[in-house]
Order: sequence, then structure tokens, then C-alpha cells
Amino acid sequence: MNLREFVRDIPDYPKKGIVFFDITPILSDPHAFRHAVDCLAEKFKDSGATKIVAAEARGFIFGAPLAYKMGIGFVPVRKPGKLPHKSRCVTYDLEYGTDTLCMHEDAIAPDEKILIIDDLLATGGTAEGMLRLVREAGGDIVGCGFVIQLGFLDGPRKMKDSGQEHCFLLELD
Amino acid sequence: MNLREFVRDIPDYPKKGIVFFDITPILSDPHAFRHAVDCLAEKFKDSGATKIVAAEARGFIFGAPLAYKMGIGFVPVRKPGKLPHKSRCVTYDLEYGTDTLCMHEDAIAPDEKILIIDDLLATGGTAEGMLRLVREAGGDIVGCGFVIQLGFLDGPRKMKDSGQEHCFLLELD
Repeated sequence: MNLREFVRDIPDYPKKGIVFFDITPILSDPHAFRHAVDCLAEKFKDSGATKIVAAEARGFIFGAPLAYKMGIGFVPVRKPGKLPHKSRCVTYDLEYGTDTLCMHEDAIAPDEKILIIDDLLATGGTAEGMLRLVREAGGDIVGCGFVIQLGFLDGPRKMKDSGQEHCFLLELD
Repeated sequence: MNLREFVRDIPDYPKKGIVFFDITPILSDPHAFRHAVDCLAEKFKDSGATKIVAAEARGFIFGAPLAYKMGIGFVPVRKPGKLPHKSRCVTYDLEYGTDTLCMHEDAIAPDEKILIIDDLLATGGTAEGMLRLVREAGGDIVGCGFVIQLGFLDGPRKMKDSGQEHCFLLELD
């Protein structure tokens, strides 16, 4: 199956000159959606991961089924003020400005084997935020997986710089 | 399995006097998470649904694995400005003020059989918004499922008033 056929190009979104890659056609199609989740599960089947960490909101759409499929736990990473229990937050750089992500302090046990999942690796800001959250919590990151990687942006390099290997199902440029 | 053991009571969140029911312990525990998704799948196995509609962000965490398990499509409902393609939006009442939810216009075909899923039925605002979005798109709602229902709030009555039966895995009061 060619997942590219299920990614819709939206010109000038969110602003003029940017092409946004819309993954909702993957979700609409049961075969494409299952294929994406199953491919990620196959890549990480020997990882030993016991939890998946994913950021709201689109990360949940792939991370939660993958946790279900792999029979492991799911940890939501959210924007400030969205998690009800005691949380750890990190602030990271975006192209313009900063963003902050939070995770429950008790979400990960020390040395627990963690898989980080997101739909898209673009500038790598969100991925970097999740890496920091998991590392600061003492988690052992055994893999990072993305449905799509944008090869022309900084994400792939940032992952390498952070000493973290990653994989993806589809590269777009 | 008693899902109640995996729901954490958070007093005074999001404001004083309110007890928030935190479902993240369900997600952390692979057995509880799988149990919740499998119970919903069992309830709707004869529904004929071809798509699940769920609202960001917590609705994605149960809706997406359920779509995966049932082998059907997934349609994300999001806040304004978050969906890249042409969208339909509805505004609905909250206890104080209003909120707005949007869905891609082409997400649902006329008469397509739809399952609406969320983690929590509380005041019913979000559920009502999703019902309206699906109906306005011409979808045929064949079921509504929630992990938790708060029996002391307006949600259950609102669902009844809207002519829509629903089910839930756990009632809290």
C-alpha cells in the first residue's frame, strides 16, 4: 500500500506559501489506517517498549491504536493546563517563539522502556519536547516513530543531534 | 475488571469544588486500556458502523483504537482552525458561554453509518456538538459510546432529548 495516496496536499495552510500535508484521508480509509498502525507495530515489535508517549492531538490518533495493538500503556503529552494531576512541563523553540508540553509526573517509572510516536516529523520541536520530558522522567527511549517525515525540514537532523534514532513510514519533500 | 479502580479522583480541578475524574490510569495500564476498547467494540459489533467520529483530544484516545479494532474509519472532530480542509462547524452551549467544534465537510458520506465516541459524558455539550455535525453532514448515527457517564449531570438527559440512545462502561456520581 502506498500511503502517499492517502495524504492530501493543502496549499497555503496554515499560511500562504506553506503546503500542509493532511493525514485525515489515511484515517478515513480503514485499510490505510490499519496499515499505518500495523507497520509501526512491526517496526517496534522487538523494542521491549512498555509505554507509548504521544502528544495531543494528532499524535493520539496513531499512538493510542499502536499502544492497543502492542498491548502496552499509553501516556498523553498535553499543552499546559490540560492534565489534571501533578505534571512536568518543558518549553522548546519553534520557528517563531516557543511552545510548552506537559506530562504527568507519575506517567513513567524510572528506566521504563518508552516509544515516542507522532504523525509528523517536521521541524522536530514537538519530538524534542517529548524526548526531554521522557528523559527528565528517567525513561529509557527505545524508539521514535512517525507516520510522515518532512525531509526538507530540521526534524531529522534534530533527532540525530539528540542521539535518538527514529523511523518513519513515508518521506515527503 | 473494575474500571473504577483506574479512574483517579482529582479534587478542585479545574476549579474549587469540582472533582475531576482522571482517566490516564486506564491508559497507563495495558489491560485496563484494552478492556475499555474491547468492551466498546463488543457493544457496537453489530452496529454496521463504517466510521467513528470523536472529538479532540481525549476522544481520540479511545475513538482511534476502537476504529482500529473494528476495522473502520476514523473522523477527527476539532476546534476551529485545526482542520486544514474545508470544514463544517457548530457552536453549542456550555454551562458558561459556548464552544465550537468542526469536522471536514467530506469526512462523512450521506447515510454513512456513524459511531460517536468520547471518554466522558458529562454536561453533554461535546456530544451534542458531534451529533449535530454528523446529522448536518447527512450521517446515520448508529450508536454513541462513552467510557464514563456522570449520572448527576445533564448529559444523559440531553442524549435522550436528542433522540439518541447511548451506552457507557462506567457510571460515576
